[in-house]
Amino acid sequence: MSLPKKGSYNFKIEQYQCNVRKMLRFSFLVNTMLSAADYHSTERGFGTDYLNSIGKTWVLSRLAVEMLRIPSRHEVITVETWVEKVHPLFTNRNFRMSIQSTGETLGWGRSVWAMIDTTTRHPADLMEIKEGRIMDFVTPPDHPDYIEVPITKPVRIQMEDATLAREVDTFFSDVDFNGHINSMRYLDHILDLFPLDWHKKNNIKRLDIAYIAEGRPEVPIRIYRNIPSENAEDNSTDYGFKILQKLPENKEETEACRLRLRTIPLI
Amino acid sequence: MSLPKKGSYNFKIEQYQCNVRKMLRFSFLVNTMLSAADYHSTERGFGTDYLNSIGKTWVLSRLAVEMLRIPSRHEVITVETWVEKVHPLFTNRNFRMSIQSTGETLGWGRSVWAMIDTTTRHPADLMEIKEGRIMDFVTPPDHPDYIEVPITKPVRIQMEDATLAREVDTFFSDVDFNGHINSMRYLDHILDLFPLDWHKKNNIKRLDIAYIAEGRPEVPIRIYRNIPSENAEDNSTDYGFKILQKLPENKEETEACRLRLRTIPLI
Repeated sequence: MSLPKKGSYNFKIEQYQCNVRKMLRFSFLVNTMLSAADYHSTERGFGTDYLNSIGKTWVLSRLAVEMLRIPSRHEVITVETWVEKVHPLFTNRNFRMSIQSTGETLGWGRSVWAMIDTTTRHPADLMEIKEGRIMDFVTPPDHPDYIEVPITKPVRIQMEDATLAREVDTFFSDVDFNGHINSMRYLDHILDLFPLDWHKKNNIKRLDIAYIAEGRPEVPIRIYRNIPSENAEDNSTDYGFKILQKLPENKEETEACRLRLRTIPLI
Repeated sequence: MSLPKKGSYNFKIEQYQCNVRKMLRFSFLVNTMLSAADYHSTERGFGTDYLNSIGKTWVLSRLAVEMLRIPSRHEVITVETWVEKVHPLFTNRNFRMSIQSTGETLGWGRSVWAMIDTTTRHPADLMEIKEGRIMDFVTPPDHPDYIEVPITKPVRIQMEDATLAREVDTFFSDVDFNGHINSMRYLDHILDLFPLDWHKKNNIKRLDIAYIAEGRPEVPIRIYRNIPSENAEDNSTDYGFKILQKLPENKEETEACRLRLRTIPLI
């Protein structure tokens, strides 16, 4: 049986995944995308369970998500995902989010993944796994299933003049199934810097993340932020953040990730 | 079209819902139960959206969940839920959790819900809503769909000699779609009192919760805990907690909920 290159997965928006405006929280939105990537790669023989069995794993390196509309409680969304390109050490995976019943496009995603050796933590050559069969699942621009993703690649996030906004202890509930700090918990902790009243009056339009190192549980994270910048053309605001940890064995802080939020006020 | 008295809903365990042992987090487990209750009541004309439209809402008062096995990443679970009894001011709703493909029973739940007036916060008479038609959905002991739930009712949680374990600030991510502190966030904050290493060596066997008052966002919660007690017959340990808030307009602390965890060490 040959699987289509593209995967398509449905998720019902549960009420516990919703914020005070009864809309899907952004961290749960991205989690559905990561679940779709997990299912797509697993079904095609390149999932983390197989990779772990040969001493490798996937690491999310960069991500950009841009939304036209955030879905609400009880809506069923479809997350389509496909691999656009495979470099020896990276793959580009794209996403389209839509409403299952109507096909309405909700938003788009672009991501960059590395495969690493779980012992050395060094990048592994994707072409050496299963004789490079990952190429069978690539959807290049001349393929009939190719979809042009109308958002820019993950941006480089500049962090000059960042100041400490908050130090947050990390606990069991911050830890993912791999034993590191869950990649979306950083986003939750950053969104918690904004008061509830701000969340009632603003939408997240775009999220960019660059992961630098995996976070260590039970060590506090330190969230630094930039001075926000306004974009006159669409009335949006960009907020830049970086997350650092002071590990006991190192003198310097270790950077875990950088994150940029582009938000727009509700009219 | 007449719906069956019992509702049955499937949930796939996503990797982001899993803890470091690749098992479903207990708060996500209970959230699937609350989602099932939401779907069951909504489909039968007694959901929160309808109730809100007439100035009423459901409030979870007590809950007991007892598990034989916690499901793992990628398993699909079925949550069955039904109303066992309707009192004028309360309903008893039960749950059975199982594996979809095999029918293996994973665990059971019992819950008590009150309907309240959203303005006065006083209990409302269920028999006055839609001429008491909620009685159509009750599954009494002599009904063919009746299932005996083999766990005891939610226990009364004694909290003598409790001492302050931690004060935790609450933010946007603690707030639910009703604007209160999410009922499962209390559980997450309590589970965060136990170090990661404890979670690797112990299972939650049973959870009991009694909700007293809704928590107010952006006010810290104070978690008090009992001295744990051991149960010689099954080697389990009971941990009692209560969560209080010091609201600015009150001299005394307000109690939000009490919670008991029964845990067993892994063998």
